[in-house]
Amino acid sequence: MPQPDHISKLGVPDPAGLDEDLRAIWAKCVEKLGFVPNVFSAYSLKPQRLRHFMAMYNDIMRAESGLSKLEREMVAVVVSSANRCYYCLVAHGAAVRELSGDPELGEMMALNYRVARLDDRQRAMLDYAWKLTTVPYLVDDADRDGLRAVGLTEGDVFDLSETVAFFNLSNRMASATDMMPNREYHRSTRA
Amino acid sequence: MPQPDHISKLGVPDPAGLDEDLRAIWAKCVEKLGFVPNVFSAYSLKPQRLRHFMAMYNDIMRAESGLSKLEREMVAVVVSSANRCYYCLVAHGAAVRELSGDPELGEMMALNYRVARLDDRQRAMLDYAWKLTTVPYLVDDADRDGLRAVGLTEGDVFDLSETVAFFNLSNRMASATDMMPNREYHRSTRA
Amino acid sequence: MPQPDHISKLGVPDPAGLDEDLRAIWAKCVEKLGFVPNVFSAYSLKPQRLRHFMAMYNDIMRAESGLSKLEREMVAVVVSSANRCYYCLVAHGAAVRELSGDPELGEMMALNYRVARLDDRQRAMLDYAWKLTTVPYLVDDADRDGLRAVGLTEGDVFDLSETVAFFNLSNRMASATDMMPNREYHRSTRA
Amino acid sequence: MPQPDHISKLGVPDPAGLDEDLRAIWAKCVEKLGFVPNVFSAYSLKPQRLRHFMAMYNDIMRAESGLSKLEREMVAVVVSSANRCYYCLVAHGAAVRELSGDPELGEMMALNYRVARLDDRQRAMLDYAWKLTTVPYLVDDADRDGLRAVGLTEGDVFDLSETVAFFNLSNRMASATDMMPNREYHRSTRA
Amino acid sequence: MPQPDHISKLGVPDPAGLDEDLRAIWAKCVEKLGFVPNVFSAYSLKPQRLRHFMAMYNDIMRAESGLSKLEREMVAVVVSSANRCYYCLVAHGAAVRELSGDPELGEMMALNYRVARLDDRQRAMLDYAWKLTTVPYLVDDADRDGLRAVGLTEGDVFDLSETVAFFNLSNRMASATDMMPNREYHRSTRA
Amino acid sequence: MPQPDHISKLGVPDPAGLDEDLRAIWAKCVEKLGFVPNVFSAYSLKPQRLRHFMAMYNDIMRAESGLSKLEREMVAVVVSSANRCYYCLVAHGAAVRELSGDPELGEMMALNYRVARLDDRQRAMLDYAWKLTTVPYLVDDADRDGLRAVGLTEGDVFDLSETVAFFNLSNRMASATDMMPNREYHRSTRA
Repeated sequence: MPQPDHISKLGVPDPAGLDEDLRAIWAKCVEKLGFVPNVFSAYSLKPQRLRHFMAMYNDIMRAESGLSKLEREMVAVVVSSANRCYYCLVAHGAAVRELSGDPELGEMMALNYRVARLDDRQRAMLDYAWKLTTVPYLVDDADRDGLRAVGLTEGDVFDLSETVAFFNLSNRMASATDMMPNREYHRSTRA
Repeated sequence: MPQPDHISKLGVPDPAGLDEDLRAIWAKCVEKLGFVPNVFSAYSLKPQRLRHFMAMYNDIMRAESGLSKLEREMVAVVVSSANRCYYCLVAHGAAVRELSGDPELGEMMALNYRVARLDDRQRAMLDYAWKLTTVPYLVDDADRDGLRAVGLTEGDVFDLSETVAFFNLSNRMASATDMMPNREYHRSTRA
Repeated sequence: MPQPDHISKLGVPDPAGLDEDLRAIWAKCVEKLGFVPNVFSAYSLKPQRLRHFMAMYNDIMRAESGLSKLEREMVAVVVSSANRCYYCLVAHGAAVRELSGDPELGEMMALNYRVARLDDRQRAMLDYAWKLTTVPYLVDDADRDGLRAVGLTEGDVFDLSETVAFFNLSNRMASATDMMPNREYHRSTRA
Repeated sequence: MPQPDHISKLGVPDPAGLDEDLRAIWAKCVEKLGFVPNVFSAYSLKPQRLRHFMAMYNDIMRAESGLSKLEREMVAVVVSSANRCYYCLVAHGAAVRELSGDPELGEMMALNYRVARLDDRQRAMLDYAWKLTTVPYLVDDADRDGLRAVGLTEGDVFDLSETVAFFNLSNRMASATDMMPNREYHRSTRA
Repeated sequence: MPQPDHISKLGVPDPAGLDEDLRAIWAKCVEKLGFVPNVFSAYSLKPQRLRHFMAMYNDIMRAESGLSKLEREMVAVVVSSANRCYYCLVAHGAAVRELSGDPELGEMMALNYRVARLDDRQRAMLDYAWKLTTVPYLVDDADRDGLRAVGLTEGDVFDLSETVAFFNLSNRMASATDMMPNREYHRSTRA
Repeated sequence: MPQPDHISKLGVPDPAGLDEDLRAIWAKCVEKLGFVPNVFSAYSLKPQRLRHFMAMYNDIMRAESGLSKLEREMVAVVVSSANRCYYCLVAHGAAVRELSGDPELGEMMALNYRVARLDDRQRAMLDYAWKLTTVPYLVDDADRDGLRAVGLTEGDVFDLSETVAFFNLSNRMASATDMMPNREYHRSTRA
């Protein structure tokens, strides 16, 4: 059986019927990436929700921050690994490969980040991401102090935490809709 | 020791220094609620992030939906119960009490929703919220079919899922910052 | 649907048919509290068992001890939080509010005790209560030494442990019978 | 290193100093069993507590009930298996061997009760004991109905539940004190 | 930091010093695969153990069986996914991609096999693999009957079970030694 | 109901039909032990697999090693305790009793190894066995360093790890087939 046969189990509206602002984004995606990410298609079932999701996503992943874009993608993948979210592991695993130029780093983040060779700061961020994802009620002052000890500012801790929090949202939207990633992600930066 | 002594462990900026749009929201909160919810204060460390958070929140919790506002608050509390998030349990537990006029219903949602007398539709929604929160990777067609069987449309399943997903985000922001709820929530609609 | 409609899913005998000693206790409860706690009604299905339960309960919660009555109630609520026992969280959460005069402390114990501001001794006792409840087979010398380090005597460790153990019993009787708490608990000491 | 070297890590008072009623019980144990069970010695640190513990224990394990004494011991061992309580597994495992005359049945209850050949009634009781021990907050009407379906009365469900609840208490007292069982238990009814 | 810098954290002997039979296998691997799999290098610390490991491995994965070679590799990856074993996920994920010619199937097996479109027989085998890996003590007649219901013979159930069991062994050897996979696996059959 | 009534739920071939080498092993077992271990009978469904299993087993448990035979059996039992494997707990629990001459040590390993009085080296090995069994993906340099700190060489760590790994295999074969141990094990070295 060829894999997969759907984008979202809740269905995807015809993009031709979307509002102009969304159609413009679709066009821009095709121009830049060659395809419209399936998360946008799946979310377009509720156009206003998609707008909020994209606004939040773009700000968390692309705005200025003490965390590099690669680090934010690494956090995204580690959160998605804890939640075993297929869509996000595929799409953001590709992003880690692309931004780092290191195909193995993407695999390590997805499969078990603890095997990766990382500096203390990155390791502390990923341990925190795992803990805030799996046992959020156990996060305490010692965890925040540990992040400060490797150099994170209060603003960095906020950014890191919101990245973790955001992927705990998006992982659940992907699982809820059985969202399938675009095939293009699988091929990128493999060697 | 009096409880609590902080709003966020990452600190809260002086509201006088916030942009005009946020100060207007602060004023409106005081007018309507008598206080500014601490989640806004905590999030104002990053004003643009706060704007995205509020936009998403307002749309998920207040827009037209097949789920009533009370039902969305019940889902919020059950997700927060699974994640043992103090802030959200207090703030949204109060909302369940207020919207239902039933003080015990709020407590049941926070402590163990399974003891509540609910109709099949509400029980199915809360069981789904618990599962999508705790083991999102196990959600499958049978879960979606179960929701359809009690009358949810595709759009309702989307709304329910996004409510669950959103509180998985906000629970983690609250735990990450050790966010403390305003005292006013504790008193409302207790009898 | 109004909440709740039963006291115990195993049924409750007519109090008029109880032995004289129990009827005297019922009368005393009404006089002092204004109601008979539902745990007594539920347990009266087996009068002799109720007598043993009350004797043990009274001695653990009210006898002289190195732990204050408030501390024992805090332990009761934390154990019940780990076990998500609705009855005990409601009844003993009220006791924490009453004995401390601090409505938020009761909520914190019930929802996530780790957010409360506590001295080292109380925090160590509650961490121990959580561990002995959730992973009793991992309790070892280091745990006992930790309690001694914050000032507990051997007798205090015994009392603390038995309080934890007792609520692991009573939580399970409440879950087994789907025991519902009296409504009066919800209202007491809310502000 | 010979095993073990203590009865309770909280210490054991000199039995000669105990009150007369307890010394009489000690004497009776020696007469009937050949030894004083270490749980009594450990609990004698607080004589009044021991009295309540013995009263409750004797009534739960020896009074008339729809559950046979062997069945109550089987439940005791299965609860103790879930909690990995060394003392109770050794002492009550011996009781299962003695009452059944089947040395393998005792081992099965202690190690993994699911491998035992049991009738539907006993299997349902042990599955319930495991669930009420490990996830008490998930016990619901379906579980109670399942017990009724194999013939348990309301009173039997009460007795079964209290047996489960009691060993959740005693397992924790044993773990809290690192209680060691008398050596005699190991040898009894092995072939 | 380039990834990775070791084969096994317990060290790897100089292959030139290995016995002739093993050197012959090394040569054959280079000839057929282009490299010696790192699991052989890591295991060569104990040559006799390596011989047993290879004999067992070859028989389980390559002998005649009611399970196809692809199916056995799918089982290997699902077990390794449950155990989050980096080495086996990379090496056997590549094997699934190669044998199926379907790059996405390999990713699905590694990340969350439940999202794959599979026939009932394969899905039942993978559900069994997950259960026997994570909660082996809960496997019972119903699980074996479920496999028979989708067509597995007694011999097939044996083969499936031993494949699961074997990768529970090899996953732990990989984790114990922090075994790193050869880079070649990452590139194979990606599009 | 007498316990048990089968050796393996997948059936056992008539030993008379086995190849000569296996029949010779059967005869030798009867001569030395008085019986053929049921694991051999169960595994003889696939004679070649049995040969590999026996070869690996004999080398891991009986070859020269920095771990004594008793220590390897202790590890076997602790792994089987984590996995709640009835067959291996009975058979290897007997081996611990026999090799140590200490009946209680066998019970402690099976029921909760943490209650045993052990030297630091043995305790570290058993803690490692438990961790590698239950959360293999969390094993890291600190664990290996901990073993070195109590005197284990690289080769000893390998042997310890492979013993753990092997019983994770054999526990699952026993659970998969509902393998029942020979009755003789229950009686040996009980006093």
